[in-house]
Amino acid sequence: MRTVLGIDAGGTSTRCVWLDETGRCLGFGRSGPGNPISAGGDAALLSLSSAVGEALASGAAAASPVLIQITMAGGRAAEPGFAAELPRRVGLRADVHFAPDLLSAYLSGRAASPGYLLLAGTGAVAGRVEAGALAHISDGLGWLIGDEGSGFWLGREAVIAVARAVEGRGPGTRLTDGVFAELGLDVMDHLGRSAGSTELLDAVYSGRRPVELARFAPAVLRADDDPVAADILDRAANALLATWRSVLSPSADGPTVLAGGVLSQASRLRDRVQAEVGDSVVVTDGLAGAGLLAMRALGVEADEAERERIVASLAALRASAAG
Amino acid sequence: MRTVLGIDAGGTSTRCVWLDETGRCLGFGRSGPGNPISAGGDAALLSLSSAVGEALASGAAAASPVLIQITMAGGRAAEPGFAAELPRRVGLRADVHFAPDLLSAYLSGRAASPGYLLLAGTGAVAGRVEAGALAHISDGLGWLIGDEGSGFWLGREAVIAVARAVEGRGPGTRLTDGVFAELGLDVMDHLGRSAGSTELLDAVYSGRRPVELARFAPAVLRADDDPVAADILDRAANALLATWRSVLSPSADGPTVLAGGVLSQASRLRDRVQAEVGDSVVVTDGLAGAGLLAMRALGVEADEAERERIVASLAALRASAAG
Repeated sequence: MRTVLGIDAGGTSTRCVWLDETGRCLGFGRSGPGNPISAGGDAALLSLSSAVGEALASGAAAASPVLIQITMAGGRAAEPGFAAELPRRVGLRADVHFAPDLLSAYLSGRAASPGYLLLAGTGAVAGRVEAGALAHISDGLGWLIGDEGSGFWLGREAVIAVARAVEGRGPGTRLTDGVFAELGLDVMDHLGRSAGSTELLDAVYSGRRPVELARFAPAVLRADDDPVAADILDRAANALLATWRSVLSPSADGPTVLAGGVLSQASRLRDRVQAEVGDSVVVTDGLAGAGLLAMRALGVEADEAERERIVASLAALRASAAG
Repeated sequence: MRTVLGIDAGGTSTRCVWLDETGRCLGFGRSGPGNPISAGGDAALLSLSSAVGEALASGAAAASPVLIQITMAGGRAAEPGFAAELPRRVGLRADVHFAPDLLSAYLSGRAASPGYLLLAGTGAVAGRVEAGALAHISDGLGWLIGDEGSGFWLGREAVIAVARAVEGRGPGTRLTDGVFAELGLDVMDHLGRSAGSTELLDAVYSGRRPVELARFAPAVLRADDDPVAADILDRAANALLATWRSVLSPSADGPTVLAGGVLSQASRLRDRVQAEVGDSVVVTDGLAGAGLLAMRALGVEADEAERERIVASLAALRASAAG
């Protein structure tokens, strides 16, 4: 029985699954940032090696993997350095394949196509999958000019709303407490308007990357009974739905996979999205899909039964890894 | 007759005026970025020295300046390095004084107080001036979480609208031509949706600071007969007016000085702002105000007559410098 590795390499964390060619998962590993674009090539390679090592060490005795399937974000389909270096680092003779993380996210929820993906994590993007491949993508343009309705977008809108409230440029909002608490600032000390916004400014800008505003997204998702937060969530839902609508094709009829940290948990935002997209499946990450792609890269037919086997056996492994 | 120097040190350019204690301008100089926060201390010092040197060289024979008044943005009221180093560099024995650029912008339009300032250039901020000093400030919180209605804000909204239009997530807009032209991209070649947004993404992000999105603001101001551009301009006006309202005080009745590149030219946005703020004065920069502050720092009474003398004689100098 041959075995393969599936890797979901993200900007924040990297996950690896070791599975056999029937879709039964043998081992699971997790490490830090694995995207070479944001983390740098060396750090990413280290994360990938670490996740692979952990997956292999946690698994039962089985044949060594003959193929490594990596899925990650970014235009570059293949990282030549990875393809040569990763097997050497982890002591495997294995071919390395690459695919977009959007495809693994989709396949985590649905093996067949056509269908659609709407992903809202730190970023936001929609895709149409046809014949097992991405046929069209919309948004995913990054925090500065896109990613509308993403975790970054929610977090930035939260801080903007709090700055408005603190300075009297907009209505008061319960988000102020959530944002100030996340920043470690005591809101009660800072109701003087200039003081409040100056401290907010310093805390938000000091030594952090803009994209880290995504850390305020949970405060917005939690505060949905606050009118200002509800308005932000509704505008995010509208933006995500506009992105989703822009990838629809009359000739491609299928359900929508909802993925990413913003959509994988129940919320007013997700309710609104689900009300419009109709038939949908929610996934937490793309690891099962990376496993499915690994099987397909081996030439094995991997459809809904295999996807379900991966998801179920992977859930058991993850539960024991967390326990 | 004693003489002084007024310097308006900005993030893009630095301007210096040499004037006597009656407000008659003797020399004018101009150089590059003079704000140490954004340009770095050495580069800023070089710009200030250069502007001072040019102003002194362009002036008629007169007594050496005994005082240098610098106005610049940023919380730090004084730059110790500047105060010690600038006079030495330009060969003067002169005290150095600092004031916020918001105050010099206000004083360029009005010597008396109380009154209000609404500034929209690359950033956006409002202030209330009482007893010759800034009594309250709102917004000016930078491009990531504030500066609502600023040049950056207009430019970012333009690129977001174009990305939406190109990907079919929003209505078509004439802004697409303006933004693609500014980026040196041929819009006719890129109507294929993915190609258009990918090139937009690369051009916007590649090696530029986020704040440089302000370069698209003129395209929005020009395209006010386009519904998408008009909507952006109306939202900018609403944001600027909310900022302006937040600094109003019932006990401080006075006109509003409108300043900054976005408000110093006639536009749909400025029309909407002026319709609400009532009595207003438009200024192009804070240099006349820096000159007025220099006179006041010398202990000279400098009111409306002196402001008008500075503005008129400075305009003549600038015209001959440009000619």
